[in-house]
Amino acid sequence: MAVFVLVHGAWHDGSAWDAVVRQLESKGHKAFAPTAAGHGHGVPKNVTHADCTRSLVEFITANSLSEIILVGHSFGGTLISKVAEAIPGRIRRLVFQNAFVLRDGVSLLDEVPPETAAGFAQLAGHSPDNTVMLPFPVWRDTFINDADLETAKLAYEKLSPGPFQPFADKLDLKKFYSLQIPRSFINCTEDIALPPGEYGWHPRMSARLGLYRLVQMAGSHEVLFTNPRGLAEKILEAGRD
Amino acid sequence: MAVFVLVHGAWHDGSAWDAVVRQLESKGHKAFAPTAAGHGHGVPKNVTHADCTRSLVEFITANSLSEIILVGHSFGGTLISKVAEAIPGRIRRLVFQNAFVLRDGVSLLDEVPPETAAGFAQLAGHSPDNTVMLPFPVWRDTFINDADLETAKLAYEKLSPGPFQPFADKLDLKKFYSLQIPRSFINCTEDIALPPGEYGWHPRMSARLGLYRLVQMAGSHEVLFTNPRGLAEKILEAGRD
Amino acid sequence: MAVFVLVHGAWHDGSAWDAVVRQLESKGHKAFAPTAAGHGHGVPKNVTHADCTRSLVEFITANSLSEIILVGHSFGGTLISKVAEAIPGRIRRLVFQNAFVLRDGVSLLDEVPPETAAGFAQLAGHSPDNTVMLPFPVWRDTFINDADLETAKLAYEKLSPGPFQPFADKLDLKKFYSLQIPRSFINCTEDIALPPGEYGWHPRMSARLGLYRLVQMAGSHEVLFTNPRGLAEKILEAGRD
Repeated sequence: MAVFVLVHGAWHDGSAWDAVVRQLESKGHKAFAPTAAGHGHGVPKNVTHADCTRSLVEFITANSLSEIILVGHSFGGTLISKVAEAIPGRIRRLVFQNAFVLRDGVSLLDEVPPETAAGFAQLAGHSPDNTVMLPFPVWRDTFINDADLETAKLAYEKLSPGPFQPFADKLDLKKFYSLQIPRSFINCTEDIALPPGEYGWHPRMSARLGLYRLVQMAGSHEVLFTNPRGLAEKILEAGRD
Repeated sequence: MAVFVLVHGAWHDGSAWDAVVRQLESKGHKAFAPTAAGHGHGVPKNVTHADCTRSLVEFITANSLSEIILVGHSFGGTLISKVAEAIPGRIRRLVFQNAFVLRDGVSLLDEVPPETAAGFAQLAGHSPDNTVMLPFPVWRDTFINDADLETAKLAYEKLSPGPFQPFADKLDLKKFYSLQIPRSFINCTEDIALPPGEYGWHPRMSARLGLYRLVQMAGSHEVLFTNPRGLAEKILEAGRD
Repeated sequence: MAVFVLVHGAWHDGSAWDAVVRQLESKGHKAFAPTAAGHGHGVPKNVTHADCTRSLVEFITANSLSEIILVGHSFGGTLISKVAEAIPGRIRRLVFQNAFVLRDGVSLLDEVPPETAAGFAQLAGHSPDNTVMLPFPVWRDTFINDADLETAKLAYEKLSPGPFQPFADKLDLKKFYSLQIPRSFINCTEDIALPPGEYGWHPRMSARLGLYRLVQMAGSHEVLFTNPRGLAEKILEAGRD
């Protein structure tokens, strides 16, 4: 039985993985879904990318977790890359689920379409606490296109404003690109949170992993809400030896 | 319960949607599939794109339809774009099913591979009435690749020569691109009626919709014949709020 | 009922098709899976591409097979292209399953990423008999990513070193590109043996077939091991009239 650590993306916190955690546990695995610093409701949002990474490393070491399969979703891909640099010996495999695999020296904002980056900066500038929140109509059709309206609304209510600074921090990933940890990429085929094509998730992000395992499933960016059972199965396929 | 207006593509007429209409009605929805001017068997073929659009607008207004989900298949995408310009207030959402989303000022012929455009022009030139008809072997492997031979033949027999002029008319779509009507794109993943890649349906056509909802399903360009039940389900997903 | 001749790819021999052959036979078809010269365990490996082709042509003519559906997997695509040139009158349809469709005058090595070609040459140079064998970790994640570890190991044990020369031989395919034999392409959507995108199987290889039928299925490069029943169904769809 395996040990999974599931790292959420922007606007989410660890509870986004609740249904997936239950699925993994029901199959006899251990699964943890910590919340990165500055994420979730009612917490200070003035965090850097390094703060987020540090909070996850502390969670893993405090719980003495090892031989873990470390899964990152979306923005969470940037976090597991840095966590892997910090504690490579504890990680059995990295799994990127429609996740950013940043080039060395760039930020998440450098990897999205320029109009998206400009939009995020504008939203943050107009916020009281340098955070970004997507309007429901955008999120509904672009992120959770496979949900009915009720599911989409329930999922949207769980979101909280995402700290802007971690999107803007440029990351030194030289060590990440030297690591020999096996890695997988899960691609949901209807995910248009990044627009398909030039800026798409796959194969743009996946190819940067070098030798990697591809796993695909139907679904949107938010399959952790719309199909947690299917996602758990794919995480198991992506994470197995 | 929703109201659907289904707009056929080239070589088809409204009856191509018969099985899909039955599926939608069996779930309690209203569904209409008018035939555009110049399409179908035994009608004059000397129509323009504007004639086709006008006939559909007249159908919708004559039947006092409103809050409609307007679906366009293939060439029908060019029609629903112009219908939306004419009667935007009656439309709840536009759904493009492997459909052309033309750039402003161009024709359908400007959007297909040059050799296809040349082939259409040649076929029309050799026809008695400026129409285009595809030979069965081409249509069978390129349009209805997911059918057995009997289904392919039955479907082919329903086709009728398509008027050439609407392919050649360059469309002013400035108003279309200013509309705020929600829109979806259904992509059938084995559709090679447009060759995948540089000239493919998705994301080339879909991306032009700006903010849109993506829905995908397995199948060829002619899933309205080969999988009407599956297509109806996807139309419902694409059309819901 | 149809007659299938299934041509394996590199590192495989005819026995790789055993489970697919059983599936096709169980549906009343005839299916043959000859081993190309220089392939399999315990045979001399110093063969050229022409030797491989000749051995397959001899198998087909010696068994008086005609009206065949000739299927090629991976490297086997280069073989069925040359077999089709030699005995076009015996072939009803060509089916390429994630297979190379070479441009005229080039070799397989000219079609893979340069670093892959260099890697193959290096492996061959270090081998005692000018052969190439992939390390298990590479093959496991890149070729058979949809298998559990046990299936992956069992399948890997069946592989044998592949002769390098047929990868390097530049092929005259002028006649192939003049043939009017119908053709299909089966694309497994999780196949990353060629990296998706610029160097990917589909639509890069498939588009070279001109008028062709596309059939897709979920799975890796090695679905003949991981899903022989599903592959047999898709071969039937690809091969039917």
